[in-house]
Amino acid sequence: MARAPETVIHIPVAVSARHVHISRAHFEALFGPGARLHSDFALRQPGNFAAVERLTLEGPAGRFEGVRILGPERARTQIEVSRTDAIHLGIEAPVRMSGDLDGTPRVRLIGPAGTVETDGLIVAARHIHMNPEDARRWGLADGEAVTVAIRGTGRDIDFAGAVVRIQPGVFTEMHIDTDEANAAGITGVAVGDLIETLP
Amino acid sequence: MARAPETVIHIPVAVSARHVHISRAHFEALFGPGARLHSDFALRQPGNFAAVERLTLEGPAGRFEGVRILGPERARTQIEVSRTDAIHLGIEAPVRMSGDLDGTPRVRLIGPAGTVETDGLIVAARHIHMNPEDARRWGLADGEAVTVAIRGTGRDIDFAGAVVRIQPGVFTEMHIDTDEANAAGITGVAVGDLIETLP
Repeated sequence: MARAPETVIHIPVAVSARHVHISRAHFEALFGPGARLHSDFALRQPGNFAAVERLTLEGPAGRFEGVRILGPERARTQIEVSRTDAIHLGIEAPVRMSGDLDGTPRVRLIGPAGTVETDGLIVAARHIHMNPEDARRWGLADGEAVTVAIRGTGRDIDFAGAVVRIQPGVFTEMHIDTDEANAAGITGVAVGDLIETLP
Repeated sequence: MARAPETVIHIPVAVSARHVHISRAHFEALFGPGARLHSDFALRQPGNFAAVERLTLEGPAGRFEGVRILGPERARTQIEVSRTDAIHLGIEAPVRMSGDLDGTPRVRLIGPAGTVETDGLIVAARHIHMNPEDARRWGLADGEAVTVAIRGTGRDIDFAGAVVRIQPGVFTEMHIDTDEANAAGITGVAVGDLIETLP
């Protein structure tokens, strides 16, 4: 990474609660033919929103009701939970990067118009969305793994192996799940320090 | 710390699920006059055990049934939960070292013979139990804050600010809670590397 060792890069940290990215076919199966997602509020990533529509997530051991769908629709349904959530559901969910869904476990989605059994259940691997301008300024490459330090929360932690994902137009921020946020003492918004790269 | 920088100190890591340390008065109020704790199985710390007796933990937003009591009895009741648990209960629980209970929030304990409202609800601060022999060998002082690195789990993390607590006869191990274990990808037993001290 082409920067002075003493440089501190501040990275906003966003906490992802359990949520679902849904395919058109699954959404219609759950909410009825022709159903459309409606935005409840916009997310920081341009074009993304938390939908008004919610569903129930069910596994062999437990369920969660009122789970958020995040829009827009995707080509393939992806269900992101924390490991705590996975234990509650009774399903061993792998830690995966978004979109890496082959061989992921199946879970039941329940909506007002129907039920779907689908694979796509993952614990999202920690990652940093980054626009090309920030990546260039900081000398970071797509796919590079970095460490982000959280300090001053009373539960200081370094998150190692956070993968940088460079995409035009995104708001640069790290995404972690609720287990990671709770372990790091993070409530709501936080800022981390990108402190090093991994070999 | 009087050791070569390249020295790696391996520390066993134990995961604490939610549990209760109970006072005599509270135990009798919950389980009846003259009731005694019975050991279900011994813990690694000599003299400590998971009791057969379990209780219900209740807050304004939710409850947990079948919560373990860890023996032996203590002078003061202490209830240790993860932050995820605290959110489920609907109580903001502070991160505290064991025994540092003044001003901690109240929670309801329910047993077969009665109910108790008590303070003592905490999220346990990460810490390392250490016997004086290991502390001397590694050049660590009581109360010193160190960092423990978890590697090879798929969710690598450095736990900073882990406080060393030196006591004769203890089994040297780090204690973390279930949020920290899940954030670090730890299942069951794990071993961390004590890599540095904090200023």
